[in-house]
Amino acid sequence: MEMNIALLPGDGIGPEVIAQAVKVVKAVGQKFGHTITFKEGLVGACAIDATGDPYPDATHEICAGSDAVLFGAIGDPKYDNDPKAKVRPEQGLLRMRQKLGLFANVRPTFTFPSLVHKSPLKLDRVDGVDLVFFRELTGGVYFGEPRGRNEQGTKAFDTNVYSKEEIVRLARMGFEAAQKRRKLLTCVDKANVMATSRLWRETVQELAPEYPDVKVEYEFVDAVAMRLIQWPKAYDVLITENLFGDILTDEASVISGSMGLMPSASLGSKVKLFEPIHGSYPQAAGKDIANPLGTVLSASMMFDYAFGLAEEAKLISDVVNLSLAEGVVTEDIAEGGKAHKTSEVGDWLAAKIL
Amino acid sequence: MEMNIALLPGDGIGPEVIAQAVKVVKAVGQKFGHTITFKEGLVGACAIDATGDPYPDATHEICAGSDAVLFGAIGDPKYDNDPKAKVRPEQGLLRMRQKLGLFANVRPTFTFPSLVHKSPLKLDRVDGVDLVFFRELTGGVYFGEPRGRNEQGTKAFDTNVYSKEEIVRLARMGFEAAQKRRKLLTCVDKANVMATSRLWRETVQELAPEYPDVKVEYEFVDAVAMRLIQWPKAYDVLITENLFGDILTDEASVISGSMGLMPSASLGSKVKLFEPIHGSYPQAAGKDIANPLGTVLSASMMFDYAFGLAEEAKLISDVVNLSLAEGVVTEDIAEGGKAHKTSEVGDWLAAKIL
Ligand SMILES: CC(C)[C@H](C(=O)O)[C@@H](O)C(=O)O
Ligand SMILES: CC(C)[C@H](C(=O)O)[C@@H](O)C(=O)O
Repeated sequence: MEMNIALLPGDGIGPEVIAQAVKVVKAVGQKFGHTITFKEGLVGACAIDATGDPYPDATHEICAGSDAVLFGAIGDPKYDNDPKAKVRPEQGLLRMRQKLGLFANVRPTFTFPSLVHKSPLKLDRVDGVDLVFFRELTGGVYFGEPRGRNEQGTKAFDTNVYSKEEIVRLARMGFEAAQKRRKLLTCVDKANVMATSRLWRETVQELAPEYPDVKVEYEFVDAVAMRLIQWPKAYDVLITENLFGDILTDEASVISGSMGLMPSASLGSKVKLFEPIHGSYPQAAGKDIANPLGTVLSASMMFDYAFGLAEEAKLISDVVNLSLAEGVVTEDIAEGGKAHKTSEVGDWLAAKIL
Repeated sequence: MEMNIALLPGDGIGPEVIAQAVKVVKAVGQKFGHTITFKEGLVGACAIDATGDPYPDATHEICAGSDAVLFGAIGDPKYDNDPKAKVRPEQGLLRMRQKLGLFANVRPTFTFPSLVHKSPLKLDRVDGVDLVFFRELTGGVYFGEPRGRNEQGTKAFDTNVYSKEEIVRLARMGFEAAQKRRKLLTCVDKANVMATSRLWRETVQELAPEYPDVKVEYEFVDAVAMRLIQWPKAYDVLITENLFGDILTDEASVISGSMGLMPSASLGSKVKLFEPIHGSYPQAAGKDIANPLGTVLSASMMFDYAFGLAEEAKLISDVVNLSLAEGVVTEDIAEGGKAHKTSEVGDWLAAKIL
């Protein structure tokens, strides 16, 4: 198969972890006879530094012309504590999501038996957790207008807005995923307070009869924030709006103890995007110590979701499991064993594939 | 001292837990020679059933004419799955907060050594946790206008809005609390996305020099949702807007393993309100099994925050600790020991005080 892949390493440890995913993807391409072309683009703080724009048009053209995007991480502390900064790295991310039409962020949370003891939760709570969030990614308060300040600057406002169509297309993805899994869908909202949430709940209630095999539960976002820690095994597929999804998927990401390994996919258009859920971790940048497995597993999701190549996807997750079993891992999960460098882990995985 | 206390039992287990707090408050009044007058009002689903209004004017008059309000819980499942219901119990709660001017919700999270093993988190993570949220309670998306639907009903919108003054008065409470505690203040926002959050961050940055002994940290809401579980001991005082506060205080409430015991206070006006953080728990209503200790500890906070009576407050928390030590507790925390009835626990506490 011909595959055009855009690489957006981004900031911090982004370039290092993307480099390992590239080794793995190349090895898979070689083994299965795929022709893979990579094109690299700038995004985030590094793009601001180079061009003044966190998502330059040149980068968008590369992405829009590709089949899939492999994304590292963005963000730089120098922008975080300056609320008056006019241009911020995150704007690049948001513009990218919107311009590419990536309206669904898929974030699985599952456990690796060899890492589950690293969870902050007790073993019985977390053992065997297997849930997936479908977070709406191009609507809500992230993009709603009007937003800003009054003239005197003494008042600020944001608008949360959702149309029925936006909810329907995201919810259908959730229903379909639930049908292939344990057939439980949880609609997360704040319908006791927010008008947008009431439209979410109403719309999901209208769709439910089309998926008679799926049990639908409606839960308030505050209740989910609790139950996710109390008993995460209660969940299968969760659907929610952009902001709630931002908060809850991050909360969920720590429960398995394997945050550095968690992949994600952003879907919705011809071009699909894949990225680890961890951040740009600036303190570790350039030290060859970052854990590349979240990015490598994102590449695995890419073969599956973007190209329908389940065998290739499986091979990647198999070699990741092998690296865990044999202790070929970075210092964050080495635990007394040898701490391997980021680049060593990538080399080892690629060699195992070939 | 003369004390006028409004009692709003509300729905579900509300009446049962309030009844125990009343026993305790009466006993304290008797012991210390305070003249306490109680007036009871309807709020929530029971108020809708009786009057069609979840916060009737008569109830507001009772509250506005009191020094403090003791509140149980509201909410009834019959309203939850009907997104089209015109009147909902929660509206009563929101209207009450706004009309009484209760702009700050104070939610401590701390541990009881005898209960900490019930936490879903591992002992080393949760042992000794002691943090307190100051959640803004009368602004943000809960009250912002415009909100609603477009004409065809196919689009819904909410407005999040904050003025500088609203942020200042809440933030000052947080700074002052931090000064009396471990001197760490965390401002929780989403300043990388939301205009309101940028005003929060900016305003807190402006206030910070007035409190040179307080260390201020700024953290995004998604990061806090993670760190609260990973290492809750990192936090001391957290300040945040209404919706983030709703989600995060509920998340925080489960980490100590003592959710049924957690009290809260809502401050901001002459009248102050005190309530347990748990909900109306309709499944348990009328069974005399609900844990009254969260409400009793809310009454303890009332003596302290509303009347400046620290000795009375301390006596109540001391007898609560005694009830835990001697196993005079309800079934949710009885653990093999005898499960006492809600009313028995209240009687026992009152008797110990006298
Ligand atoms: C960086 C930030 C704008 C972004 C978001 O809030 O969507 C991030 O937290 C994420 O979840 O990808
Ligand atoms: C019942 C609901 C409207 C309320 C809120 O969201 O404020 C509740 O969750 C709370 O935290 O007191």
